[in-house]
Amino acid sequence: MNKKKIINDPVYGFISIPSVLVYDLISHPYFQRLRYIKQLGMTHLVYPGALHTRFHHALGAMHLMGLAVEVLRGKGHSISPAEEEAACIAILLHDIGHGPFSHALEHTLVQGVHHEQVSMCLMKQLNETFGGQLDMAIEIFTGRYDKRFLHQLISGQLDLDRMDYLNRDSFFTGVSEGVISFDRIIKMFNVVDDGLVIEEKGIYSIEKFLIARRLMYWQVYLHKTVIAGEQMLINTLRRAKELASGGTSLFASPALAHFLDQQIGKTAFFESPEHLDQFVQLDDQDIHAAIKVWASHADPVLSALCRMLTRRELFKVEITGSAPSPGRVEDLQQRTASVFRTSEADAGYFVYTNTVENRAYNATIENVNILMKNNEVIDIAKASDLSNLESLDRTVTKHILCYPRGI
Amino acid sequence: MNKKKIINDPVYGFISIPSVLVYDLISHPYFQRLRYIKQLGMTHLVYPGALHTRFHHALGAMHLMGLAVEVLRGKGHSISPAEEEAACIAILLHDIGHGPFSHALEHTLVQGVHHEQVSMCLMKQLNETFGGQLDMAIEIFTGRYDKRFLHQLISGQLDLDRMDYLNRDSFFTGVSEGVISFDRIIKMFNVVDDGLVIEEKGIYSIEKFLIARRLMYWQVYLHKTVIAGEQMLINTLRRAKELASGGTSLFASPALAHFLDQQIGKTAFFESPEHLDQFVQLDDQDIHAAIKVWASHADPVLSALCRMLTRRELFKVEITGSAPSPGRVEDLQQRTASVFRTSEADAGYFVYTNTVENRAYNATIENVNILMKNNEVIDIAKASDLSNLESLDRTVTKHILCYPRGI
Amino acid sequence: MNKKKIINDPVYGFISIPSVLVYDLISHPYFQRLRYIKQLGMTHLVYPGALHTRFHHALGAMHLMGLAVEVLRGKGHSISPAEEEAACIAILLHDIGHGPFSHALEHTLVQGVHHEQVSMCLMKQLNETFGGQLDMAIEIFTGRYDKRFLHQLISGQLDLDRMDYLNRDSFFTGVSEGVISFDRIIKMFNVVDDGLVIEEKGIYSIEKFLIARRLMYWQVYLHKTVIAGEQMLINTLRRAKELASGGTSLFASPALAHFLDQQIGKTAFFESPEHLDQFVQLDDQDIHAAIKVWASHADPVLSALCRMLTRRELFKVEITGSAPSPGRVEDLQQRTASVFRTSEADAGYFVYTNTVENRAYNATIENVNILMKNNEVIDIAKASDLSNLESLDRTVTKHILCYPRGI
Amino acid sequence: MNKKKIINDPVYGFISIPSVLVYDLISHPYFQRLRYIKQLGMTHLVYPGALHTRFHHALGAMHLMGLAVEVLRGKGHSISPAEEEAACIAILLHDIGHGPFSHALEHTLVQGVHHEQVSMCLMKQLNETFGGQLDMAIEIFTGRYDKRFLHQLISGQLDLDRMDYLNRDSFFTGVSEGVISFDRIIKMFNVVDDGLVIEEKGIYSIEKFLIARRLMYWQVYLHKTVIAGEQMLINTLRRAKELASGGTSLFASPALAHFLDQQIGKTAFFESPEHLDQFVQLDDQDIHAAIKVWASHADPVLSALCRMLTRRELFKVEITGSAPSPGRVEDLQQRTASVFRTSEADAGYFVYTNTVENRAYNATIENVNILMKNNEVIDIAKASDLSNLESLDRTVTKHILCYPRGI
Repeated sequence: MNKKKIINDPVYGFISIPSVLVYDLISHPYFQRLRYIKQLGMTHLVYPGALHTRFHHALGAMHLMGLAVEVLRGKGHSISPAEEEAACIAILLHDIGHGPFSHALEHTLVQGVHHEQVSMCLMKQLNETFGGQLDMAIEIFTGRYDKRFLHQLISGQLDLDRMDYLNRDSFFTGVSEGVISFDRIIKMFNVVDDGLVIEEKGIYSIEKFLIARRLMYWQVYLHKTVIAGEQMLINTLRRAKELASGGTSLFASPALAHFLDQQIGKTAFFESPEHLDQFVQLDDQDIHAAIKVWASHADPVLSALCRMLTRRELFKVEITGSAPSPGRVEDLQQRTASVFRTSEADAGYFVYTNTVENRAYNATIENVNILMKNNEVIDIAKASDLSNLESLDRTVTKHILCYPRGI
Repeated sequence: MNKKKIINDPVYGFISIPSVLVYDLISHPYFQRLRYIKQLGMTHLVYPGALHTRFHHALGAMHLMGLAVEVLRGKGHSISPAEEEAACIAILLHDIGHGPFSHALEHTLVQGVHHEQVSMCLMKQLNETFGGQLDMAIEIFTGRYDKRFLHQLISGQLDLDRMDYLNRDSFFTGVSEGVISFDRIIKMFNVVDDGLVIEEKGIYSIEKFLIARRLMYWQVYLHKTVIAGEQMLINTLRRAKELASGGTSLFASPALAHFLDQQIGKTAFFESPEHLDQFVQLDDQDIHAAIKVWASHADPVLSALCRMLTRRELFKVEITGSAPSPGRVEDLQQRTASVFRTSEADAGYFVYTNTVENRAYNATIENVNILMKNNEVIDIAKASDLSNLESLDRTVTKHILCYPRGI
Repeated sequence: MNKKKIINDPVYGFISIPSVLVYDLISHPYFQRLRYIKQLGMTHLVYPGALHTRFHHALGAMHLMGLAVEVLRGKGHSISPAEEEAACIAILLHDIGHGPFSHALEHTLVQGVHHEQVSMCLMKQLNETFGGQLDMAIEIFTGRYDKRFLHQLISGQLDLDRMDYLNRDSFFTGVSEGVISFDRIIKMFNVVDDGLVIEEKGIYSIEKFLIARRLMYWQVYLHKTVIAGEQMLINTLRRAKELASGGTSLFASPALAHFLDQQIGKTAFFESPEHLDQFVQLDDQDIHAAIKVWASHADPVLSALCRMLTRRELFKVEITGSAPSPGRVEDLQQRTASVFRTSEADAGYFVYTNTVENRAYNATIENVNILMKNNEVIDIAKASDLSNLESLDRTVTKHILCYPRGI
Repeated sequence: MNKKKIINDPVYGFISIPSVLVYDLISHPYFQRLRYIKQLGMTHLVYPGALHTRFHHALGAMHLMGLAVEVLRGKGHSISPAEEEAACIAILLHDIGHGPFSHALEHTLVQGVHHEQVSMCLMKQLNETFGGQLDMAIEIFTGRYDKRFLHQLISGQLDLDRMDYLNRDSFFTGVSEGVISFDRIIKMFNVVDDGLVIEEKGIYSIEKFLIARRLMYWQVYLHKTVIAGEQMLINTLRRAKELASGGTSLFASPALAHFLDQQIGKTAFFESPEHLDQFVQLDDQDIHAAIKVWASHADPVLSALCRMLTRRELFKVEITGSAPSPGRVEDLQQRTASVFRTSEADAGYFVYTNTVENRAYNATIENVNILMKNNEVIDIAKASDLSNLESLDRTVTKHILCYPRGI
């Protein structure tokens, strides 16, 4: 069987599977599961094209890794075929631990369990399955491999993960503001002292990349209606779990039931293999299918939330610079309690506040290094007086207030 | 509340919702349901981007209707605002009766019930809900309205339904062979004697359109692996229904259970409103979520099929010009029965034959009329000695043979 | 003869000519001349695709005007067919007075004559030719028409001229950093108190627009090698004029000879019609054709400059934050004089300094007004704490120093 | 000086210059000259974006060669770095002998001298200049190198020359019908017995390629108005040469004058080096600049033709299946002679007939070989019953009749 497949990708044209091992990893049920986990969760309620999956994103990031390796080799940096394959595998699997609607889950079903830890755990399991063939990939992934730039390509200010998701999210949402010149940026990659740098003439492309990222945050990732949808999902799962733990019967697939019926903390999750076994059975469809059924549940809070979600009657969201007054929130909760005939405590499932923030470029965590024509390496903020990075490096915090329309 | 929304669409940039009535129809649960029905069913197993939905396609077709009306008005044909809205509604709702994986369903869960009839039925219900405001839309949809060309824009050789799905399927699969110059074709629309015609200089674009359609058939719609996936789904549902009717318990949402547990013929379906009520609860997610659970079912046939589907271990498909020999088929069935430890009868769930056909341009059903510069209207086949329509008008029939890999 | 033509445009797909009058203006020799004047002068020496012309740009800007009028009408602002045609004509003709390589010319052949004045002059001539049919177009163009927003669409912070040239220059150079969401911006146009405003949710698109413009400045319009090419052209024409005025014979088309052989100041230019008659005969080809011939001229300065231009042996350009030291410049001039065997005075044709500047958003000249959801109109700088407009509003001045490579 | 440049190309994104030798060849005046020769001659009069040059096309074809070499190496075919560079050079220089408006020139200024011979001649001169470094490139170009497939990539049914020009012409004209999946086709390249073959699953892309080519012929290359423009140019040059040989004085650059003033046959052209020296000085601008001046020449035929060309008052062209009747032609000539006040003989400059033909796929010259999955190599016509190649293999001949509008 020919495993050197070519996959059509509307974003890059074609993605080639580079080796038999990569083909076998893609074929593994852990990876196939990502076909059913949308990259952007509830965003498709605002941008109907945004149905692309973590499966597709992982393939795309792997494709960019191939391009980056080619560019760096062309500039005289030696990268062995084994290193190339390991780097491809590391980025392919970087998100393998994501559950459906990660944030919602991390706040509800599997409290305190972060997808990064699950990814690590699954990569180790796959490494056993594949007889240690993932050793180097794991070293690169965890930053313990000595060619540090390989890790930076997977996780860093300009990693190929971001590069792909900005591209792909922009493509499938149709928000052209997020388009980035990924090919140009990659062509400007170079390595100095084992660290990834950008050649001077790529500086404008980087600036555009940082700005595109910021615009995508405000136009897509933190779009009001997207926030409304996600928050409604979180509240729905919270309510379902509350009911289940009280013994109420709820339609659910076995995997979903597993996490509804019991409280599984972080330690328990990683200690007992049955939790992970159930976790890898979960995808977006368990959640969606349950929500449709719950829409006719006897509990008025659960059914109201689910009906609103399936009918796309989403909360109204106000985003403001300062926190809403407690009086306003209380007033909204009282009116909600009366309209929805719930207790005032349960009105909290419909009215709530939160904060969101975005900082496009965080110079304190990791900076972008520019390789000047005179071979000096300097921070991008110093490389150009053109750069308006100061404003990108400022954290912008916003307050959100959600409540049912018509209250 | 502002209902003159603009929706981002990666295919056309933006789609404007033309009126309050259209906004309210889009918001109706019947239409929102289409968000969860993929346009191309199992095709995403081959083309991972092909996750776009009937919801998005219907909006796209409506957008093209707006463009077409503008062009025809610009050429002096009067189309009233009411007619424009009706035509937009008619095309918006043309597919509203589709269930998940239409073909699979029509062969299994709701045998003999075609989606066109369900669409008609739901449009009538919506018309009641909206107090008769859909009267003209229904007249146009059924071809009873006197401006015949409006119906042809919805259903005809060059209708906007096809125009959008070719565009959209090509966009999301990444198969650039299917790209058509929809804007140029629409700009060449004209009306003579109430019938839609194409102006002479659009003839090459039409030819390209017909060829693109044929290429999409062979590269996407009838792609071997897509056929394999769909056939496996059909067999899975057939088996599930067989088990359910024998009293075996199966995980299923209430709506899916409704159609698994009983035989509902065409007459019954339309007579008793409960069937339709359950039907509009069904979408792709009911099926997918069940399949995941059935993969551990005790029935060896059902669980094998579901495991293969979720892991994407799809049947091998051979497409040939002539039928495979009965001996070969029987031999495959025997070997399958032995490997899968099933009866030879049940081996039919794994090995089967079928035929597929495609005819890009069927001159006998409805032809494409060209408006020549001398104002004559003639069939495209006569309009140009360039045209290789004869070869497109030939039906190509192919035989398919499916069986598990490794048998 | 059908004058409702459709023109293929790779940027927008199709451009429709809206009326017979517009068709006739496009057919006029004054407008046809723009076919032979490149939009970006010498830029094609760096970006080989940048051969698009002022002809194509003017058509594109007219196309965008059609879209803008449609959007504003859709929002209830009345724009009569006559006003629409006038606005289309005004933007179609806004650049009609451009000569080849405007800047080069304005510094050499026709000193002090700005293309805006020539545009005005030619529009008046066309108005006579067309019996006063351009009256309203001229009023809009000059800002004397009472619907002020029509003028702002032609000349303002967000006019359709800029919108098209950013799009078009980005498309033909292949510099994707300049891509703007023109369709989204135009969809966000609105009018308050006769003034053009942007609806609040278009704010990110505007920000992207301003940034794209800045990036295009530094990557394209002020690209080092582009500056080198333009400066060499200016020096070539200066030298040619110096020689011609000294009686040296030079190959030149009659129109070019007209401007080489005499000093024509601003007043003379507009007083005597023969100058304008010759001016409208000039295009890029007169200059290029002459340069090729001058490359073998006896004058060592002229022939050296022309040889370098035709062979693309362009000056080295240094761009710095502060002015180069006079000593360095003098030293370069001395070495140049010795290598090129010229006097030190003539070495100034090869070594020179200049400054360039760019300010992406000039709040003091005209600001961008945002229409908030509460119907308030406020300046973009106040509309959003996201906005990094301060950095865009800063003028960046750079010093350039050019000299022959290898000196 | 860094010669590993990257050039922005709107068609492919970026083109890398692969070696110092290639950089130096691109910098040579022979190659720089191609910057001023449009790929599609007068086509920009119909498609205003079609100003792209042979310079850009040659770079694009070289870029595709790089991709093809990478694909073939990936499939295990050895291609040494020297062979890769030679193949790149061969395709880079394949059109270097083109003059401005090749067809016009070959019929008028340099009768009987074909651009292929000039290319060969210039490649040999460059080989001398570069000390024999082009030996292998010339062997590949002329088909004498033993890896036959390298030659087929430069000149064959599916060569990279066609691949680039279809892409590029489609891109710059905006005729989306000509878009081809070049990346998919190249990915399907393989080599059997030193010959280029296409893998079976690329068959639809090939079919689309052949159809795209045919559509480009009728929509662009043989567009009526393009034919009119080219024929008017031919007649203009014929008249100019007739006048010049009769001693009439004509404005012309020295290089153009060289070919106007004397009859240079094929033998003379290649025997005496001065002819080639003048030829490489010629580009589109010599012709255009002269035409503008000739528009006021005393000769009524020359000035009428040139006025019509500069004002784009192009001939009316009728394309028909059978030849126009001699009576009709004679009648048109008589009326023309009377309107233009010329002799009836000179009316032949305004009224003339010709034939054009197109055959998309010529199986008799060289066929496309398909590598089937069973490793058989068969002709595409036999590879698929889908293929409508018969109709593409038919030569379509059309008669054209041109005459001034309004006669």
